[in-house]
Amino acid sequence: MKVYLKKNIKNRIKNGHPWIYYNEIEKIDGEIENGSIVEVFNHENYFIGKGYINFNSKIRIRLLTRKNEKIDKNFLKKRIVQALRRRNTKEESFRVIFSEADNLPGLIVDKFGNYLVIEINTLGIEKIKNFIIDVLIEIFNPVGIFEKSDSTSRKKEGLTTFTGWIYGNGPELIPYTINGIILFADTKGQKTGAFLDQRFNALSLRNYTNNKSCLDCFCYTGNFGLHMLKFGAKHVTFVDYSKRAIEVAELALKKNDFQNYELIVGNAFDILKSFYNSSKFFDVISIDPPSFAKSASTKQSALKGYKEINLRAMKILKERGILATSSCTQVISEQEFINTIFSAAIDTGKISRILHKGGQPYDHPQVLNILETQYLKFLLLEIENLK
Amino acid sequence: MKVYLKKNIKNRIKNGHPWIYYNEIEKIDGEIENGSIVEVFNHENYFIGKGYINFNSKIRIRLLTRKNEKIDKNFLKKRIVQALRRRNTKEESFRVIFSEADNLPGLIVDKFGNYLVIEINTLGIEKIKNFIIDVLIEIFNPVGIFEKSDSTSRKKEGLTTFTGWIYGNGPELIPYTINGIILFADTKGQKTGAFLDQRFNALSLRNYTNNKSCLDCFCYTGNFGLHMLKFGAKHVTFVDYSKRAIEVAELALKKNDFQNYELIVGNAFDILKSFYNSSKFFDVISIDPPSFAKSASTKQSALKGYKEINLRAMKILKERGILATSSCTQVISEQEFINTIFSAAIDTGKISRILHKGGQPYDHPQVLNILETQYLKFLLLEIENLK
Repeated sequence: MKVYLKKNIKNRIKNGHPWIYYNEIEKIDGEIENGSIVEVFNHENYFIGKGYINFNSKIRIRLLTRKNEKIDKNFLKKRIVQALRRRNTKEESFRVIFSEADNLPGLIVDKFGNYLVIEINTLGIEKIKNFIIDVLIEIFNPVGIFEKSDSTSRKKEGLTTFTGWIYGNGPELIPYTINGIILFADTKGQKTGAFLDQRFNALSLRNYTNNKSCLDCFCYTGNFGLHMLKFGAKHVTFVDYSKRAIEVAELALKKNDFQNYELIVGNAFDILKSFYNSSKFFDVISIDPPSFAKSASTKQSALKGYKEINLRAMKILKERGILATSSCTQVISEQEFINTIFSAAIDTGKISRILHKGGQPYDHPQVLNILETQYLKFLLLEIENLK
Repeated sequence: MKVYLKKNIKNRIKNGHPWIYYNEIEKIDGEIENGSIVEVFNHENYFIGKGYINFNSKIRIRLLTRKNEKIDKNFLKKRIVQALRRRNTKEESFRVIFSEADNLPGLIVDKFGNYLVIEINTLGIEKIKNFIIDVLIEIFNPVGIFEKSDSTSRKKEGLTTFTGWIYGNGPELIPYTINGIILFADTKGQKTGAFLDQRFNALSLRNYTNNKSCLDCFCYTGNFGLHMLKFGAKHVTFVDYSKRAIEVAELALKKNDFQNYELIVGNAFDILKSFYNSSKFFDVISIDPPSFAKSASTKQSALKGYKEINLRAMKILKERGILATSSCTQVISEQEFINTIFSAAIDTGKISRILHKGGQPYDHPQVLNILETQYLKFLLLEIENLK
């Protein structure tokens, strides 16, 4: 089960990127079951690494190692222990495995208190799922493991979706605590049920929301707004398009004994506009939209979307108000995002000042040679009238 | 004292940049004393703002406001109060005024405990210095104010240098506390005597230095290394070219009752190489060099310098060690800095993983339309062998 690459091997592969595309392969020796482990060599029979193959995907091979080692339960345990050492955290809830960024392409594991939620996005990981579950039980002894493999990317891998408790049991809404706030991971929600990647960015609002009127736009299950209330906000308006997300946010608000909030189900673009029309202004606004673009082809329209939503937010901010603005669109760089915000500021006659530049936390590492691991941008801005 | 700009006014000025170059001015009405306040209009007599003029500088005018308001003690008080509201901090030591970024071009004010250190870089600020001192005394009631106006940029303004206590009195080495660590601002040192801009970046080492062997390269008066020891380092090696800086670091080490360190005066490039030659390896290394380039013309050699020093650091890091690497060179963007680190990693056969991306703290804000306010980059990386 040896795979030989073409002669002019790309620097991407040499420099550590784990993906090998279908058109980079010269020949394959022997019969290989789809999804199984293969050894990869260059055209001169020089060993490159080991990974899993998928004949249904343009990304034909994803490398798991550059060493000639056995891919078994021990290997997976080593990888997960490496990821835990990398994190070296005492937090109770965090991302345990972040796919390519932790040398385990196709696997996401989030820890929410005593529960784990795993997301499997490739056939290769599906094939070694039992090893992974065994190791996770060994290391974490969780109350339950929920599998939430319902990403659309599974289709490209020839996989159907699956969600359900695969070990132990747990509630539909898994409670967890970050920064002293109780939240819920929704097993019927997006991705693994919650976005752990924004917990430090939300923490950066600490000094800015005391006794302030705040708006959490695209609030999902309430991350930013709950932090605003924790940090003394006078009032928080939560806005999200999903009725279910708003209901989960409400449950968290009650669990934390927060008062002084309102919940609005609706389109953020429209709602910001209506606030402007009715002269409803805020001291602090968070904008944390879903990814506006999945590929480079929709990048321009995504940039337009970011500009428009941030422009609408700037218009309903009080003088020297705070805008906490996020972008999780992978195809947009931080500089492009900053330029977009700048452009919105100019169009509204504002000076924008970065008080804090956030990003991905330590448990969502960015590998420099794997651009796909870089996606989250976060700016905490003061918005001042130019004149 | 009216200044009229040329017809094709630059977007830079329209969008809020405070600088007006000598060749952007059409005409000046009336006699003006050098360094005094002028009103600026466009060619159609439309009011643009007020600022101070300097006939010795290519940057002829620096705007202080876009409003038609009097530049007096009240104005300066308003500006300083705005800066304090922007910071809204309970820290005892922080940057109070960051020049252009706080709408007060030419003025730096750092607070170290009960002392203030001010740095005046322009003639215009020199002229209103008494107002500024009065306001600072009113607001902070400091034990002493030290003026440290010895930047080389004063020459361009036609100013000589000056350092000394201008209000009250204080020690040559001003003690101050950040993150629970005692440090000293050296009134005979660089800039305001200490670099407050790295205190949160140093804090990000918290989870990574416990029981580790660490190296603080370009340590100056000890910021990163002191943090490493605070966070449980087994041993820290401090390296700096300045004997005086090392002496100040040593004083801080004793004041904090830290043990297990060594201090080396010497060239970091050479010392890293000698460590490699003698197989001296570290778990954690901080690289915080002075600016390698002051202008775009020396940018390429600066990038070479960053690559070389980081490459040497990577070579003496243990497997999966931590590299905390900084760049304060304004002409180098974050992306260029990241690319340089990536290039050093490739040349040494390493995978580099960003665990935390730092930058400028809230009291060194970056104004989006004033590129000159953006300078500090910081990456906390895990460095792993590719093979």
